[in-house]
Amino acid sequence: MDILDIINGRSSYRGRYKAIPVPREDLLKIMRAGAVAPSGCNKQTTSFIAVDDEKLLDGIKALIDPPVAVTAPAFILVLTRKIFAYKDKCFNVQDYSAAIENMLLAIKALGYESCWYEGHITDDDDIAGKIAAHIGVPDEYKIVCLLPVGIADEKVKRISKIPFEQRIQFNGFDNAQLGKE
Amino acid sequence: MDILDIINGRSSYRGRYKAIPVPREDLLKIMRAGAVAPSGCNKQTTSFIAVDDEKLLDGIKALIDPPVAVTAPAFILVLTRKIFAYKDKCFNVQDYSAAIENMLLAIKALGYESCWYEGHITDDDDIAGKIAAHIGVPDEYKIVCLLPVGIADEKVKRISKIPFEQRIQFNGFDNAQLGKE
Repeated sequence: MDILDIINGRSSYRGRYKAIPVPREDLLKIMRAGAVAPSGCNKQTTSFIAVDDEKLLDGIKALIDPPVAVTAPAFILVLTRKIFAYKDKCFNVQDYSAAIENMLLAIKALGYESCWYEGHITDDDDIAGKIAAHIGVPDEYKIVCLLPVGIADEKVKRISKIPFEQRIQFNGFDNAQLGKE
Repeated sequence: MDILDIINGRSSYRGRYKAIPVPREDLLKIMRAGAVAPSGCNKQTTSFIAVDDEKLLDGIKALIDPPVAVTAPAFILVLTRKIFAYKDKCFNVQDYSAAIENMLLAIKALGYESCWYEGHITDDDDIAGKIAAHIGVPDEYKIVCLLPVGIADEKVKRISKIPFEQRIQFNGFDNAQLGKE
């Protein structure tokens, strides 16, 4: 499938998943797509934990309130470390975001659906911290995102977006166009 | 070309570009790939300016010190706005990073090369601010990244990475593996 079709066809999925396991081979392909993403000064601040053990998955799901992706047969947890690229500059947010986007595309390309759950687990109630404690992630790593992986059991919906023409420009800035929403 | 091949085959290119223009059609495809990236609470905080006008391109290149991508026939400037997703949470860095990664993949898929220039233009000497002033970008927008687009005129080099096995885990955290570098 053409990469532009995958990029343009991807959307966030918040529905039920089929009770079909995700082969390790596919989880590895997905995490590899994440690991090869570019990173600021090649610091590779992002790492990944795949969860497909049913008991561990249930334990993690029980920590997520309100619950999300309760039927997903696998999760990928995205971990970041604050490694400075140079001086006081750290690009770890950019690094893990590029890695997540690569994984979302790989997930789609392999026939699965997912959703970028970040704010939901990193908000004030710190679900990510609870998950980290549950699986023994050391303090220097921070879980920043949860990606469910599985086959959709419902129709995948598209979200509406600002018209493309209002987000791009050629050779300058035209308030009348780009500023519009 | 398979998306996983594109993802795995992408690398940052810092060499010379051929003096061959990039068709508008391709610049639009690349920016569309950026615009369809997911964004926190669908706030779509990222927008894009393509520069292919020779005089404007030269004007922008003259502001970049030390110079980069001097032979590139086109630039895409990535702009962000600090729009809150909810409460005090803003995911604009995640948003533009996902958009940039999509564009880097689209660039590669279309036969071009690029490099994610962010720190170079957003550092203390604020090259991005000078470019913004040069093209009249309003204060509420911030240029955060410059992507050259063009056909490589030199060999594309690969950067070495930490072994994949040291960046992933299954079902838990094993210090002996993931902590290793």
